[in-house]
Amino acid sequence: MITAEIITIGDEILYGSIVDSNAAYMGQCLTEMGIQPAWSTTVGDDREHIRQALDMGISRADVILVTGGLGPTHDDITKDVIADVIDRRLIFHQELLDVVERMFAARGILMPESNRVQAFIPDGATILDNPIGTAPGFAVTSGRATIFVMPGVPREMKKMMVEQVTPRLQDRSGGHVILHRMIKTSGIGESSLSEYVGEIIAGATNVKVASLPQATGVMLRLTTSAPNVEQAREQIGTLESEIYSRAGAFIYGTDDDTMEQVVGQLLAQRNETIAVAESCTGGLISDRLTDVSGSSSYFQQGIITYSNEAKIAHLGVPAQTIEQHGAVSAETAEAMAEGIRRVGKSTYGLSTTGVAGPTGGSDAKPVGLVYVGLAHETGVFVREFRFSTDRRANKTRSMLAALNMVRLLITNPKHL
Amino acid sequence: MITAEIITIGDEILYGSIVDSNAAYMGQCLTEMGIQPAWSTTVGDDREHIRQALDMGISRADVILVTGGLGPTHDDITKDVIADVIDRRLIFHQELLDVVERMFAARGILMPESNRVQAFIPDGATILDNPIGTAPGFAVTSGRATIFVMPGVPREMKKMMVEQVTPRLQDRSGGHVILHRMIKTSGIGESSLSEYVGEIIAGATNVKVASLPQATGVMLRLTTSAPNVEQAREQIGTLESEIYSRAGAFIYGTDDDTMEQVVGQLLAQRNETIAVAESCTGGLISDRLTDVSGSSSYFQQGIITYSNEAKIAHLGVPAQTIEQHGAVSAETAEAMAEGIRRVGKSTYGLSTTGVAGPTGGSDAKPVGLVYVGLAHETGVFVREFRFSTDRRANKTRSMLAALNMVRLLITNPKHL
Repeated sequence: MITAEIITIGDEILYGSIVDSNAAYMGQCLTEMGIQPAWSTTVGDDREHIRQALDMGISRADVILVTGGLGPTHDDITKDVIADVIDRRLIFHQELLDVVERMFAARGILMPESNRVQAFIPDGATILDNPIGTAPGFAVTSGRATIFVMPGVPREMKKMMVEQVTPRLQDRSGGHVILHRMIKTSGIGESSLSEYVGEIIAGATNVKVASLPQATGVMLRLTTSAPNVEQAREQIGTLESEIYSRAGAFIYGTDDDTMEQVVGQLLAQRNETIAVAESCTGGLISDRLTDVSGSSSYFQQGIITYSNEAKIAHLGVPAQTIEQHGAVSAETAEAMAEGIRRVGKSTYGLSTTGVAGPTGGSDAKPVGLVYVGLAHETGVFVREFRFSTDRRANKTRSMLAALNMVRLLITNPKHL
Repeated sequence: MITAEIITIGDEILYGSIVDSNAAYMGQCLTEMGIQPAWSTTVGDDREHIRQALDMGISRADVILVTGGLGPTHDDITKDVIADVIDRRLIFHQELLDVVERMFAARGILMPESNRVQAFIPDGATILDNPIGTAPGFAVTSGRATIFVMPGVPREMKKMMVEQVTPRLQDRSGGHVILHRMIKTSGIGESSLSEYVGEIIAGATNVKVASLPQATGVMLRLTTSAPNVEQAREQIGTLESEIYSRAGAFIYGTDDDTMEQVVGQLLAQRNETIAVAESCTGGLISDRLTDVSGSSSYFQQGIITYSNEAKIAHLGVPAQTIEQHGAVSAETAEAMAEGIRRVGKSTYGLSTTGVAGPTGGSDAKPVGLVYVGLAHETGVFVREFRFSTDRRANKTRSMLAALNMVRLLITNPKHL
């Protein structure tokens, strides 16, 4: 299998002033082509460090993708160092200078003299056009490694990657394909999930599985490689079915699916509607539901009742319920869910009440304690959750737990 | 100057499934301490590649920060490889197991057996507590390098970095300081902002300024370096005051300030309250306001009125207003703001109505057209905005524009 090294150059990446989204983008492109991104290295605008990274890349990778340091200023030294490492001279190309000059002319600006350096690339290198910026890229070979050098500006890099680099790499990947599938779960921890599927994952021979715990739920990433896409799909599909057969109730979607899309689709298919009464989630459930285009067909209203008065006035929660059991209680969650279903005249009424934190907890009602209520013509269901002490994480996990209850009531009520 | 290497471990980073925000965060922390992040390397869950990266780090850096691969599953091999590279055994710590068991008990779950591995760390290593996750970190020395190993979950890593790693590194950093200040603006474009402050930025000798246009507003990043933190603060402070004196009305905060915190503080200081009626923002304003701990003192309720019926029923918007002017109109925004202020008995009533997109636009009311209403005893203010065709971006920009109107009415009403 062909391996690749990504080298991103720039002090601003090392200092953390910008997040290195270029590396992630190149990693995705390589993976989709069946080339394995095996190393990713970032160095600053430092001659010796760039040289070291290039030497290392040439010694171990088949393909090297370099971004950054191609601009016209004094700290843009990438081209110089590469020419040095592969022992070639930098050669002037009139056609490159013409392009840069035209670009400045189009903006009505005289080209600053410093931009002349952008017309030089190493002897024997192939020019990679940059139609939206002044720094051209280039490709050059050293030993068994092909080095592609691109500008660091993300939109220039992406365009060059898609239009210039990918077509040249397709030949080299030799028809070998890597395929991923992300399986997204909710309502189960990493180790419990592993008790359901650990054995079949360990036993899988041609698919690698990574377990990725996120605040939003555990994800399983399946990766396989095969000589062609059909075989790769079959390999992934076989394991995926086994995982579904053992842990299907916990799986809400794959790849780019979001919980709000999945729930929205279920509602839209059934011509059903939902209304939401939020206390501890503070609007987040409604926000996510309305992130889906077309959600107005199943979501007409939500009420955020942060105070007790609002719970009583808008949802008809009995004052006595709050007095007796507290605002954070199964009883209040139940009354809120029934109330919003009635007020919203909707198929489902969904409610949350809890202690989001980081303050406001007590021994009886600690930070992270959340009740979710779900009212439907078949009954009212209330579940208790104990999350963390982080306010935003508690809101997010409550939102997902609540939407997951709707999903389960529709698709798999015995797991609710 | 002390140098550091950052090593992030995980196939998902190489494949571009996630962007490596951990590396950026660690880079910032190091820079602020005057330690130079000189290399950042990512390798996959591969024993040989992890070993190679560690060997390289130990040979060239004074400090090595490692994240990822500390979980309880079979692909979490970081600890194993490190023990191997530095030639130490992994030792069981009962107190670590106790912590993990208590964490599961608090969630009402029996600890799965697989989590036992998290109680092992290399012989002679110092434990770094992880109060919000099950994977402890550790620090260990090899030759001149100190290696800090942290979990890959960003919020766990960040907490460990701040509370455990930074204090241990402060001693090593030796004196040279780089300081950043982010100045955050709202409601002004990059080139207009430049007309206010371009001249003083160009004239600044010891502070570098980068203008960073983001979907949420233009940010100015000030960077300076000095032999000590006092001098660095003074250099930044001088330029910052000049920028405030020219463009203060557009600046809502610095560094980690968020718009919702700034508005929340203004309300809390004045013992004032706000209620929100959201259409196109779908709950996002309420969600952000309630992200601030203590927000229940000024935010009691919000109503998401996605349908016309809900606008009429909950907010008393006259049916005639919607018929005559449409749900997306200055008149409806005005009636919504007045309605929610009355219903919520609050100092301010804030409303949004618009075409979030990507579909649903017309020639008269294109996608991205948004009206924000703000009701107060001094009057009702309505502003029209034209944003983009991206649904999420429109929600975010509407939310920020709405909260910024509250900020301006309180602090600088002539700029409203």
